[in-house]
Amino acid sequence: MINALRFSLLLLGVSFSQGFLNDLFDEEEQAERVVQPSKYGSLWPLPQKVQLSEVSFKLNGVSFKISDAKESTAGSSCSLLQDAYRRYYEYMFGSFKRQEGRKSRHAGPSDLTELQVWITSSESDCDSFPSVASDESYELTVDQPYAVLKAPKVWGALHGLETFSQLVYEDENGAKSINSTTISDFPRFAHRGILLDSSRHFLPIKVLLANLQTMAMNKFNVFHWHIVDDPSFPYLSRTFPQLSQQGAYHPYTHVYTPADVKMVIEFGRLRGIRVIPEFDTPGHTQSWGKGQKDLLTPCYSGSKLSGTFGPVNPILNTTYDFMSQFFKEVSTVFPDAYIHLGGDEVDFSCWKSNPDIQKFMKQQGFGQDFTKLESFYIQKLLDIVATTQKGYMIWQEVFDNGVKLKADTVVHVWIGGGANDEMAKVTGAGYTTILSAPWYLDYISYAQDWQKYYKVEPLNFNGTDEQKKLVIGGEACLWGEYVDATNLTPRLWPRASAVAERLWSAKEVTDINDAFNRLSVHRCRMVERGIPAEPLFSSYCPREYRGV
Amino acid sequence: MINALRFSLLLLGVSFSQGFLNDLFDEEEQAERVVQPSKYGSLWPLPQKVQLSEVSFKLNGVSFKISDAKESTAGSSCSLLQDAYRRYYEYMFGSFKRQEGRKSRHAGPSDLTELQVWITSSESDCDSFPSVASDESYELTVDQPYAVLKAPKVWGALHGLETFSQLVYEDENGAKSINSTTISDFPRFAHRGILLDSSRHFLPIKVLLANLQTMAMNKFNVFHWHIVDDPSFPYLSRTFPQLSQQGAYHPYTHVYTPADVKMVIEFGRLRGIRVIPEFDTPGHTQSWGKGQKDLLTPCYSGSKLSGTFGPVNPILNTTYDFMSQFFKEVSTVFPDAYIHLGGDEVDFSCWKSNPDIQKFMKQQGFGQDFTKLESFYIQKLLDIVATTQKGYMIWQEVFDNGVKLKADTVVHVWIGGGANDEMAKVTGAGYTTILSAPWYLDYISYAQDWQKYYKVEPLNFNGTDEQKKLVIGGEACLWGEYVDATNLTPRLWPRASAVAERLWSAKEVTDINDAFNRLSVHRCRMVERGIPAEPLFSSYCPREYRGV
Repeated sequence: MINALRFSLLLLGVSFSQGFLNDLFDEEEQAERVVQPSKYGSLWPLPQKVQLSEVSFKLNGVSFKISDAKESTAGSSCSLLQDAYRRYYEYMFGSFKRQEGRKSRHAGPSDLTELQVWITSSESDCDSFPSVASDESYELTVDQPYAVLKAPKVWGALHGLETFSQLVYEDENGAKSINSTTISDFPRFAHRGILLDSSRHFLPIKVLLANLQTMAMNKFNVFHWHIVDDPSFPYLSRTFPQLSQQGAYHPYTHVYTPADVKMVIEFGRLRGIRVIPEFDTPGHTQSWGKGQKDLLTPCYSGSKLSGTFGPVNPILNTTYDFMSQFFKEVSTVFPDAYIHLGGDEVDFSCWKSNPDIQKFMKQQGFGQDFTKLESFYIQKLLDIVATTQKGYMIWQEVFDNGVKLKADTVVHVWIGGGANDEMAKVTGAGYTTILSAPWYLDYISYAQDWQKYYKVEPLNFNGTDEQKKLVIGGEACLWGEYVDATNLTPRLWPRASAVAERLWSAKEVTDINDAFNRLSVHRCRMVERGIPAEPLFSSYCPREYRGV
Repeated sequence: MINALRFSLLLLGVSFSQGFLNDLFDEEEQAERVVQPSKYGSLWPLPQKVQLSEVSFKLNGVSFKISDAKESTAGSSCSLLQDAYRRYYEYMFGSFKRQEGRKSRHAGPSDLTELQVWITSSESDCDSFPSVASDESYELTVDQPYAVLKAPKVWGALHGLETFSQLVYEDENGAKSINSTTISDFPRFAHRGILLDSSRHFLPIKVLLANLQTMAMNKFNVFHWHIVDDPSFPYLSRTFPQLSQQGAYHPYTHVYTPADVKMVIEFGRLRGIRVIPEFDTPGHTQSWGKGQKDLLTPCYSGSKLSGTFGPVNPILNTTYDFMSQFFKEVSTVFPDAYIHLGGDEVDFSCWKSNPDIQKFMKQQGFGQDFTKLESFYIQKLLDIVATTQKGYMIWQEVFDNGVKLKADTVVHVWIGGGANDEMAKVTGAGYTTILSAPWYLDYISYAQDWQKYYKVEPLNFNGTDEQKKLVIGGEACLWGEYVDATNLTPRLWPRASAVAERLWSAKEVTDINDAFNRLSVHRCRMVERGIPAEPLFSSYCPREYRGV
């Protein structure tokens, strides 16, 4: 019979252990599908190079500190780092309070009392915004007399702090411990994103911030904010306030004010996360029409106006005047170098019904090919946005329709069938691309679907090495039809964590059993940090979620 | 173009309106799949008889009170009712405070200032536990000078209070209003349950209580507590404390103490909810074996003990001694007249491997028919439990295997394929039955699967009227493999609400569009009461969920 006390200790041990308990346990427990210790502990996503030793040190919340290395180019004046030190101290020690004066009295010979953070580049990026070109690498050495985290830029330091915190575990007596470790790490892909949709359901700021926090725990670095769409327009525009006044679910309680947006962006920046807004046109714009007269195409039923509206009206000059002003504002509000311009799923039926549109089609010689009209609109829009000095991302249809794109355009592949062919085509045409097709997390199903997301290989398409280099990453998309503040977070995590590892770790990291073991503990760590990340399978966390 | 301000008001109006705004809105909004007002407002589940008028009264939190009618047989000494008054006052008015002295000053002529609750039976049941035979009916008249809620027993009064609170809505100025209404109501089925599984994941008490609250909002009246199973044994037994000491995920943090269990039962009672525990044997008992030596069957690999264990060992007298003592305790801890004894999914392979079992089979003349051995065990168990004066519920296999059952046994039909045939068979044999087969809510899928649950007709099997009367209800089951405190509540609600209406309302209540409209608002009401019930589709609630 299995010794149940040992069984309990096993689970506790696993939950925050380094994984050196492996040999203590036999196959019986395996049969019970209990989480097994991974040799990589609970590291998630797995770093590129990890050397773990069995030498362990104690971490004492009273004496432990995270400090700037003397040689660091970002010191106490770098609030991004100081903020991160506080955050990770709290993640590791909770409500313990560090007491400077008592340090020497409490530190024993096997204690690790300090983590020194050393930014090595002359430009630390402390006060910058992250970009697709940001250096996110870091090197972490955990050893006495102190641990050292070296990174060229603050972005790597942020990731290294997360990794350091993931190395901390509780020994059998509940004492915080860490093993002597050397890690050298950098992301496989530069663009690792989460798409959230705040139009189909309004997502309170609190929800967005909680998910930015969780993204940082998973080394995601892009928040793709699908901020408006058909159902509602919660973005409060200074230039066109009537857009949200009329188009939001509610003009006061269901909008993002300029201050809200600023907060989201800064909250992301402090965690190395870019905020890329999507203002999708010419389709998906029903809510725009409520506050902007004549922006949408009036549809006809036979020879009469039907009273309904279609996509943005591409034949009026006023449309382009509006877009110029609107995107001028957007380009200043959002500091990222890229804006996502959408361009997906344009329904032609309303355009077809409208005699003015038909006339315009004739004048332009488009025949009955409405993709040409769509491209006409998009082309003008891209040219407008190009004048704001921003780069743009677009959904794959824009590329498919042959629109002339700037060289730095990012094409976003999302259509499930034939995604590999599409990746080959887009990169074959020389465009950078990101992949979302296999990672539509709004589609839910019974059991462990994270494994499906985990098994995706983004470069598994026919193409040259040059083409593959054009794939800069991917995004997990959580569309909002069935998701709001009540269920978003447990639905997203840890399912998106599977995508996080795929986009960060080396291509060879594909052991699904090891992933299960690490991810199980990683998810309990998210729970312990207050994030209601759902379970992978029957199991428990030492400290269960405290919300309801 | 749709007037967007009106659009906003529509949504607000719908959210807590009585449904008299219908004619204000045209088909355009329909096309947007916006929630439309139902003529039954947000009543859920729909009462048996509803007469609504357009005469409306204001409800003023300062002056409104819920009081005992003079003639009531349950007055101020009935803490169940007093507790319910406070609860529903808070649901309706939130943080407003009632101020007795200022009543006359604030009440206007169109105000409704009082709801009188009148228990009519000489036995109010105030201090009793609810049972399958409890009278849950009530009659509610909302009119001036005061509203009257009449019910034979407190159970009906609880339901009537919920219904009254569902009639309250906010007018366009945010003032609480209620329309003149007459309702006569009673449940179609007496047994309306939710199964939660606290073994595969431990469910903190806070989660259980939140769901009991939500059950009351949906007029469910049975909490089927699948408290232990293979993965863990969180029930702290006074008689056999080693069961949870060894078999729980953790002996202190992941157990239900006697005080916890008592609290859950009383919390349920105060809401008219029975708590029926399930102690499933002889299968699903791996966790029992950890703390109770020789309880489980040792499995063999060839001629050697394999070290693993199978179902409860049915050939030892010690097994039955243990069960006698254990169920004696259970029968005193849980006041309900029924205990669920499980009996599902017994795996015979371990029994087959064991030479002692084989010998016993021979002695008994069972041949190689292990269902006979299973029945042998179950029969002895049922006889043991019968001595505790409890009735029992069992999963359908026990009936299928021909075990001799007490006349008052409830057979629980759960197997998906052929459930209608099974219902016909069970009721044909004269047993009462409850249905769960179509309501396994742990199976999730994309989009509005609540409709699938809603469309089930429990009596849609071949059988006589007498047989159909034996169907006393059903249960929505949320098994715990993929569910814990992080995601249980939004996964259960409002999907279980669909089952609630099917089990409470008249058979003819099947309009899925009207259900969508009422349920959308009902779900926002749950959200407003602090329950993270997930959305049905793109939409919003006036006050979104405040947790994360």
